Amino acid sequence: MEIPEKLLEVLKKDGVVAIGTLGPDGPHMVNTWNAYITMTKDGRMLIPAGYFNKTEVNIASNKNVLLTLGSSKVAGFNGPGTGFLIKGTAAFVTSGPDFDVMKLRFAWARATVAVTISSCTQTL
Amino acid sequence: MEIPEKLLEVLKKDGVVAIGTLGPDGPHMVNTWNAYITMTKDGRMLIPAGYFNKTEVNIASNKNVLLTLGSSKVAGFNGPGTGFLIKGTAAFVTSGPDFDVMKLRFAWARATVAVTISSCTQTL
Repeated sequence: MEIPEKLLEVLKKDGVVAIGTLGPDGPHMVNTWNAYITMTKDGRMLIPAGYFNKTEVNIASNKNVLLTLGSSKVAGFNGPGTGFLIKGTAAFVTSGPDFDVMKLRFAWARATVAVTISSCTQTL
Repeated sequence: MEIPEKLLEVLKKDGVVAIGTLGPDGPHMVNTWNAYITMTKDGRMLIPAGYFNKTEVNIASNKNVLLTLGSSKVAGFNGPGTGFLIKGTAAFVTSGPDFDVMKLRFAWARATVAVTISSCTQTL
């Protein structure tokens, strides 16, 4: 999956990312910061998990995730401000290189949420 | 529903709000800006809808919504940075005072998404 240059710009800006999952008791949403996301060379997103307990439970039964993120500081279709809707599948990773690289950046991380992107849509 | 002062602070800061709904074909998420949200005197959130077509379809069959928003510029539990997870029910409103007040601010609005908050949890 080719990652748009504009998405990489957004990741450098201050902002709140939302991560949506669907569990047995309905949808759930948690947040991280744009700058916490690390892109791998093969185009996956690595996100540090501090709590994310319900997200972990949901992913165990349904690995599909939605993410939104954006920035008013990056130009979009209509001038300043852009955003993305990302669809993918997620895994909670607690060992190996995907975990180690995030644990180095975020000592508090109990896991890495590794997201394989299936679609990335610029929404604004 | 009492709205926390800290949430009102967040609404004044630059940031991306995520709005999650659940439709027949799964969860969906759209975005708006913190500053676009208008709080009513009775503690509801009014959000201008430009597109939000899938959100409208989803709400027609399931009015439950989740919202997340935050700001790195407002202090939270651990220093700078706070966020909220809001649960509620939403309605698409295309006439009456809830629509008129938003149409005045946002000429492009085709509807107001009026959210009645059932819970508001500070997550950070």
